[in-house]
Amino acid sequence: MVRNIKLTIEYDGTNFKGWQTQLHDRTIQNEIEKSSQKIFNEKIRLIGSGRTDSGVHALGQVANFKTKSSMTCEEIQKALNANLPKDIVILKVEEVSLKFHAQYDAKRKTYRYTILHRPHRCAQQRDFCLFYPHPLNLRLMRQEAQVLIGRHNFKSFQASDPSKPHRSTDTIRTIKHLDIRKRGDSIVIEIEANGFLYKMVRNIIGTLLEIGNNKLLKGGIRMILVQKNRTAAGYTAKALGLTLLKVTY
Amino acid sequence: MVRNIKLTIEYDGTNFKGWQTQLHDRTIQNEIEKSSQKIFNEKIRLIGSGRTDSGVHALGQVANFKTKSSMTCEEIQKALNANLPKDIVILKVEEVSLKFHAQYDAKRKTYRYTILHRPHRCAQQRDFCLFYPHPLNLRLMRQEAQVLIGRHNFKSFQASDPSKPHRSTDTIRTIKHLDIRKRGDSIVIEIEANGFLYKMVRNIIGTLLEIGNNKLLKGGIRMILVQKNRTAAGYTAKALGLTLLKVTY
Repeated sequence: MVRNIKLTIEYDGTNFKGWQTQLHDRTIQNEIEKSSQKIFNEKIRLIGSGRTDSGVHALGQVANFKTKSSMTCEEIQKALNANLPKDIVILKVEEVSLKFHAQYDAKRKTYRYTILHRPHRCAQQRDFCLFYPHPLNLRLMRQEAQVLIGRHNFKSFQASDPSKPHRSTDTIRTIKHLDIRKRGDSIVIEIEANGFLYKMVRNIIGTLLEIGNNKLLKGGIRMILVQKNRTAAGYTAKALGLTLLKVTY
Repeated sequence: MVRNIKLTIEYDGTNFKGWQTQLHDRTIQNEIEKSSQKIFNEKIRLIGSGRTDSGVHALGQVANFKTKSSMTCEEIQKALNANLPKDIVILKVEEVSLKFHAQYDAKRKTYRYTILHRPHRCAQQRDFCLFYPHPLNLRLMRQEAQVLIGRHNFKSFQASDPSKPHRSTDTIRTIKHLDIRKRGDSIVIEIEANGFLYKMVRNIIGTLLEIGNNKLLKGGIRMILVQKNRTAAGYTAKALGLTLLKVTY
């Protein structure tokens, strides 16, 4: 009997070339497929909620796969965690309806971006935050971030690299929440949306940093959205500060 | 004119063979001395508040060195942080009295030990916590930990390896604070004392874990202290969960 298994996954993206299986690179999907095939002794095709780029982390990535195995969810979790490398952990294993599809059924995703805002860098969390030693006007960043909330055409925030096949032609998305919090030396930005365009979170973060550092004019976000052109927005913030927190179904 | 410079240091101890300079190994003292010598163009001898073992981290290690340089503290900090490897950061640079000695003048030290207490390991913080999936009786651990507070002969908690020359003959120490807190999936233990014997913190943690897991008899700590023998106490907890938080002068 075929079963459909849903995984909730934590990973440290530092030493991966992103989520998606590639022939010669170390990827998260590759590693989980390899371990699963070893455990189940059958070909496993893992479907992720979406790819994450090289260096991007996850505390709640979701994926599913079909198997003929009769192992319990607890046994599957134990076996996977015993076989997976140290930088990937399966947080949860659930049996779901055969119709469940981790990518197509995802309703919302939440990302967190962490900025270390102090004059000197950080040794311990260096792979999990962007070091930003320059002045930032948080009040202005929060004010401009409000403009992003809601249903908009985010084309200006989609990566413009034409060699990337995974850009969307439908660039309308809805941002449900976007909040910017100060936690000690860090600024933590959480964004929840019904979906994200390629590099959209990192382009939003880069833009908010330029606004906070007074590099973009006041009222900039509204103008950027209107222009529907990648060159209107700010730079792409580094991958290392980004974590996929949650996928909601 | 000779000046005495005090450094407050953060490091990720994962890829070091501990603090203390060794001929062939990568150590924190080595790296800071090398960078300082490059910057000041003179021989620098760094005095640490004490050594930390291989894999032990710091968020507030303190060290001092003498220099003839006329650079300001801010310039020294910038130059050191630009030269040091990614896993060491200088958090603070202060000019202090020529009499100040980071080791001899230390009045108290505070260590933190982090235990990940859940069924599955952790990918992102794997080098900063001990993964402990077994049952723990926190109430009993807290009760027994109380017995350690105060002035005692901690000989039972000193590493017994006779090849280690840095064991103390005076094994009386005073623990000022010891608290055990639950933070989400983690148990965080902080210990402040006027000084620690070699591997004392890790031996205390190992013992508290055995108590929490019902491996040692109730009332065990009092008996362990009385016996003044390393074999009376529990095992040595792994280095990776340990962080030197603060040195007080």
